[in-house]
Amino acid sequence: MARDEIKDLADEEARSALRLKWGEVPAGTVPAWVAEMDYAPAPVVTEVLREAVEAGTTGYPPFGDLGVGAAFSGFARRHWGLEVAPEATVVTGDVVAAIRLALDTLCPPGPVVVPLPCYPPFRVVVDLCGRPLVPVETDPDDDEAVLDLTAVEQAFRAGARTFLLCSPHNPLGRVWTRGELEALRDLTRQYGVRVLADEIHGPLVLPGSTFTPYLSVDPTAILVTSASKAFNTPGLHCAQLVTLDAGERERLRALPMPLNHAFTTFGMLATTAAFTDGDGWLAALVERLDGQRRHLADALDDHLPKARMRPLEATYLAWLDLREYGVDDPAAAGLRHGVRVAPGSDYHPGLAGHARINIATTPERTRLAVQRLGAALEG
Amino acid sequence: MARDEIKDLADEEARSALRLKWGEVPAGTVPAWVAEMDYAPAPVVTEVLREAVEAGTTGYPPFGDLGVGAAFSGFARRHWGLEVAPEATVVTGDVVAAIRLALDTLCPPGPVVVPLPCYPPFRVVVDLCGRPLVPVETDPDDDEAVLDLTAVEQAFRAGARTFLLCSPHNPLGRVWTRGELEALRDLTRQYGVRVLADEIHGPLVLPGSTFTPYLSVDPTAILVTSASKAFNTPGLHCAQLVTLDAGERERLRALPMPLNHAFTTFGMLATTAAFTDGDGWLAALVERLDGQRRHLADALDDHLPKARMRPLEATYLAWLDLREYGVDDPAAAGLRHGVRVAPGSDYHPGLAGHARINIATTPERTRLAVQRLGAALEG
Ligand SMILES: Cc1ncc(COP(=O)(O)O)c(C=O)c1O
Ligand SMILES: Cc1ncc(COP(=O)(O)O)c(C=O)c1O
Repeated sequence: MARDEIKDLADEEARSALRLKWGEVPAGTVPAWVAEMDYAPAPVVTEVLREAVEAGTTGYPPFGDLGVGAAFSGFARRHWGLEVAPEATVVTGDVVAAIRLALDTLCPPGPVVVPLPCYPPFRVVVDLCGRPLVPVETDPDDDEAVLDLTAVEQAFRAGARTFLLCSPHNPLGRVWTRGELEALRDLTRQYGVRVLADEIHGPLVLPGSTFTPYLSVDPTAILVTSASKAFNTPGLHCAQLVTLDAGERERLRALPMPLNHAFTTFGMLATTAAFTDGDGWLAALVERLDGQRRHLADALDDHLPKARMRPLEATYLAWLDLREYGVDDPAAAGLRHGVRVAPGSDYHPGLAGHARINIATTPERTRLAVQRLGAALEG
Repeated sequence: MARDEIKDLADEEARSALRLKWGEVPAGTVPAWVAEMDYAPAPVVTEVLREAVEAGTTGYPPFGDLGVGAAFSGFARRHWGLEVAPEATVVTGDVVAAIRLALDTLCPPGPVVVPLPCYPPFRVVVDLCGRPLVPVETDPDDDEAVLDLTAVEQAFRAGARTFLLCSPHNPLGRVWTRGELEALRDLTRQYGVRVLADEIHGPLVLPGSTFTPYLSVDPTAILVTSASKAFNTPGLHCAQLVTLDAGERERLRALPMPLNHAFTTFGMLATTAAFTDGDGWLAALVERLDGQRRHLADALDDHLPKARMRPLEATYLAWLDLREYGVDDPAAAGLRHGVRVAPGSDYHPGLAGHARINIATTPERTRLAVQRLGAALEG
């Protein structure tokens, strides 16, 4: 097996690698829900973990970042032409923790604008921070999934001073264009709004689209990201908050330890290895996901012809509009027919007839998932 | 090397295993500060991590606990005759996070009693939870380190309704007797006080002392613990909150995910292995630490004769009263002479002339540490 080949996990392998995705489904059910991939980790990640285990590197992480900031700096330069200093990174336990830290410590007080649908913990964490959430809905009937800037401006006018951007977008699969991001930026400047950009899916942009890091449009934004989604290591716990303001970093680093100490030594080592030496594997992954995207389209044609899906520009998570089938909760119906997808209403409360399907698996499993979902909805 | 032998790490090995303890000291300085041991992890831990790496188990942990609760249940029964149901455990990211969770979610409102000296994050976390802290000091001049129950009662009378117990005690090295714990329990019953017991050092009781789990004295207490101290795996992030009240567990499990999601799959697997199959290694470790305790006494006699030290009954952390040397901050002086110990005032704000020394290393390093501290204080 070549170093940069994507290794599919057989069912038994996936069950021991992915304890959540495969562990929390009934036997025989196709797991196409939580954002994890049915592929073995990149060899560069496995190697650094293997070394860490043999060296007994189970102690506390040091005060420094074990190279995470420098590795991300190189990755951002190579992939996106973005210059971010190594010291701009503050390591966190995960992206959700980074968002919480940013909201509590760096963002202006007041309401937070969150476009819907959204990654569900966004809503939870805004609430935990005691912030009112101003939802801005993407109209499910629109042909294109775009930011409703009129609604966004209304929210700013009403007092919201933080915008939580997901770029590329989960679950819409959108890669925002530079033009769209600049329009957002102009609006935030006008109202003095701080953008908090979750770019965890940035490395997972598929052929045909170009990723624009929000920091390249607005250097005053706060970036939160992690290698854990692209490299399939979310159980290791390492993410990053990036701000170009040195004073802000100092404030973050001076926080009492229990506010930011959930990162692990293994996670930091894996992140540094992935961002430094993972380009080849990542390229193979993106090619593979591009193929899965085609398999999904074929399977939808065959088994779920009434599904509506906008172009999947990034991520391995496809947002399906299944309203034509007249079933409120397609995910619940799917579960009864041997497939677990994520319920659309988790991402957009109150929105019926949608589901998110995870295609980071084999062509066969994707087809089977769609087929079963089709059987569930036609049934 | 036999399975249950304690493997000393050479300097270069320790530097890659213990990134904090060895990474944050100048070259050539003996690190005897943070609570980590200069020994390789138990083979049972290394083996389970090795398997996890080869299987690519880098995904999110499942909703269940991967056997942590059952493993702890067996460990508590074998070592202490304590019956704790497997389901009594709620997994957390670390002990400090468990304390925060307990204070925020389970403990009565109002001030928290914390005996001093204490593990420094205790004070931070009580403060983060918005609780006034009522310190109860151990008189450094007392021959024995005992709980000042008169002061404790005063605090209860003044309204404190939570008592944060460290048992065995870091940094005093005390193993509280059953009699002492029962007297505390009687007092807490009288005033309706909830005890939150941090027993992370419970497995590290040295020959001559008997550990009494606080739950065996008061089943209404909240226990927080982790395998990470005894098994030297704090960088993996897995700890536990144990409450015998099923309703409380339900409340904890129903909390929004970002309030308790910092545990890792690797940490959970390591914990389960350690508590299930680690008894032999742990027995060897305790024997080794018993030897280190003798080496420390010898080294103190030779190089720090004016040091006062109460009996070290548990842990590998010795509390040194160095006031006879007339140096306010012995740790700062030591650092200038090639040894890093922990400043006493970190544990007991305002207390001069104390330091905590970590003896979980080789006899040679312990002797060198004491010798250098002696040179620093005599100098
Ligand atoms: C947009 C987005 N942010 C964050 C996360 C999760 O990140 P973490 O596990 O680091 O909190 C996900 C996971 O799927 C995600 O899709
Ligand atoms: C009493 C006590 N509690 C908790 C901890 C740390 O636990 P954790 O790293 O799980 O927060 C320590 C570490 O030395 C300790 O001594």
